[in-house]
Order: sequence, then structure tokens, then C-alpha cells
Amino acid sequence: MRQPVEPRHAYRLLNHGPTTILSAAADGRANAMAASWVMAIDFEPPRLVFVMSDDTFTHTLITRSRECVVNIPCVRQLELCYALGTTHGHDGDKLARLGVATTPAVHVGAPFVEGCVAWLECRLRAEPAIEAAYAMYVADVVAAWACDLAFAQGRWLLADPALRTIHHQTRGEFFAQGERLVARQ
Amino acid sequence: MRQPVEPRHAYRLLNHGPTTILSAAADGRANAMAASWVMAIDFEPPRLVFVMSDDTFTHTLITRSRECVVNIPCVRQLELCYALGTTHGHDGDKLARLGVATTPAVHVGAPFVEGCVAWLECRLRAEPAIEAAYAMYVADVVAAWACDLAFAQGRWLLADPALRTIHHQTRGEFFAQGERLVARQ
Repeated sequence: MRQPVEPRHAYRLLNHGPTTILSAAADGRANAMAASWVMAIDFEPPRLVFVMSDDTFTHTLITRSRECVVNIPCVRQLELCYALGTTHGHDGDKLARLGVATTPAVHVGAPFVEGCVAWLECRLRAEPAIEAAYAMYVADVVAAWACDLAFAQGRWLLADPALRTIHHQTRGEFFAQGERLVARQ
Repeated sequence: MRQPVEPRHAYRLLNHGPTTILSAAADGRANAMAASWVMAIDFEPPRLVFVMSDDTFTHTLITRSRECVVNIPCVRQLELCYALGTTHGHDGDKLARLGVATTPAVHVGAPFVEGCVAWLECRLRAEPAIEAAYAMYVADVVAAWACDLAFAQGRWLLADPALRTIHHQTRGEFFAQGERLVARQ
């Protein structure tokens, strides 16, 4: 069940480097794409940065709406995540074609991708110089959510292997979120 | 053994989101600190971005030299990595105090932290506005290296569990690099 994540814990959804799915909507159309280059850059209020190629339809929607959801997929969505990273949405409804279920988000027009384990609703900051130089977008996280079977009280649970995050290496090869290691100090 | 990584493969050292150790040197002093907010932002030539608090001694050294090494630690360095993230080097030789072995890098003055599984030699780009607004630093990767038991021919091997990367959640809790998952498509 989707539960709110405290703003001060939102960075922990991204801190271990999971691959994400960026979703967006504008002018009655929606799309989503896989994105590995997404990183927290501040704790509270939470803020993040992502890199996005300007030839994607998701880019068109995000730059038009200045909003997105950073969805965090899990092991059971491996094929979907890779398909979202290797097909485009310019010429049709990619979400329908791939059978991606979405629901409305709470604060932004971009949709939640269902089946994911966490969601960060984001509004883009006006940083035209950074966007132009590096295809890099700075966003404020306006709300964060997580599946309570995967992440609760500020921590990933690892209780269900199918709900672990996935971490892209290259060309459809991922690593699963591995076992918990705790420094003694 | 440390081997060169082709520039076009350098992003794969970071793509799955490992925690890193930033090392730096200036004016005859050296230091290193753990950093999770490090991300590739371009393929070739490789480029990355990292976030670094301005109250650290590593920040002093990096902003003075405009160089650093992004070292990628592994499971056997869990305690060291956490110690490097929770102590500071302003008032002494933190590297000596923690018993960190270093060797000279090839292209930059910052040292390699020995025992790591990969190293990216970096030169900072002049981006004072980004640095001031977000404590975010953009760097060109001038050379990349990896331990050939951990990463070879552009891929993480996972052959030795002790050489897997570590991914910080919070306060000394990490996740290990998990098993390889390959999308069928």
C-alpha cells in the first residue's frame, strides 16, 4: 500500500543508486522512460537532479509541464523498466502499448507508475543554464511515497526479494539491491 | 591489479549507484571522504557530478586543486568507508589516523585510495554558479581504472563477493551490489 514518506527521509529512496522511471504528462498526453542518472542533492527540503536526453518524448512533456514523478521500480518490473528505456513515445501511446498501469499523482500532473515501490513527486526549478549545458534538471521533491512492504520508517525493508530495487549497468543488465551491511562503528 | 577502463565504459563504474570515496590533495596535504551523491552525467568523454559540503577538508583541497579521484570502495572496505564519512581531516592527517593506504594517481595530484575496486581521475569544470547554488561540482573524467578482479571489459564481474560495491542507505547501513539480472528483450 502506498504510504507517505517523511520529507527528511525522501533522499533515502535514491541514496543507494536505484534505476528510476521518469513519468510526465502535458496537454492530455502522458509518457514514461527509464532513467539511471537521478540523484538526491539535498536532504530537507529534498531536492534531486536528473539527466534527460532532449530527443525523448518524456523530455517534451517534462519541459512543458515542469513537473515529473520519479518512480522507483523493483525486481518484478525488470522487463518493463528495460522496455521503457529502449522504446519511445513520440508516435503513439507508449504506456498503453507496454501495458503500463498509471494512477494520478497527488501534487503534480505526472502520473504514478503502478507496481513501483516508491514515487517522488517533483517540480522542476528554473535552471536554463544547467539544462542547456549538461541536459541536467534540478527538481524539488514536493512529496514522496513508498510501498509499505518495501520501505517503511525511513528504511528499505528487503523483506520481499521481488520488491528490491534494480540498478542498471548497461544494455538491460541490472544488479539487484543486495543484502544489508551495517558498519560497526 | 589496476587496469585502465576505456573512456566509453567509465560511466558503468557509477551507473548502478555505488557509494564512493572522494580523495584530494593540495599544498602538501591529502584527504578523503565518503560521498554517495556522485553520478555520471555523460558517456564519452565521460563526465560526472558530485555534491560536497563546504565544511569538509576535502572540499578545501578539491576547490584549491580543482582535481579529485572518485574511488569506488567494496564490501571489504565497509568500515573504512563509513569512518571516512563520519570523521574529518581539518586538524590532522585523517588518512594516517585511519590507516588509509594511498598511491599517486597518474593524471591528477589527488591520490588513489588502495583497496578500492575502481578509480576515476577527475578535473573540475569551472561552474561557480552551480557550485554556489547547489554545492554541486561538475567534473571531467580524465582517466578511469578498475581492479581487474572486480570489473573487466566494461562489466562488473561479481566473481568475488568481497569486491562487490557498497551502496549507502543512511548512518552506516549499506546494501551490497546484488545479483545480476538480465532483461530478456
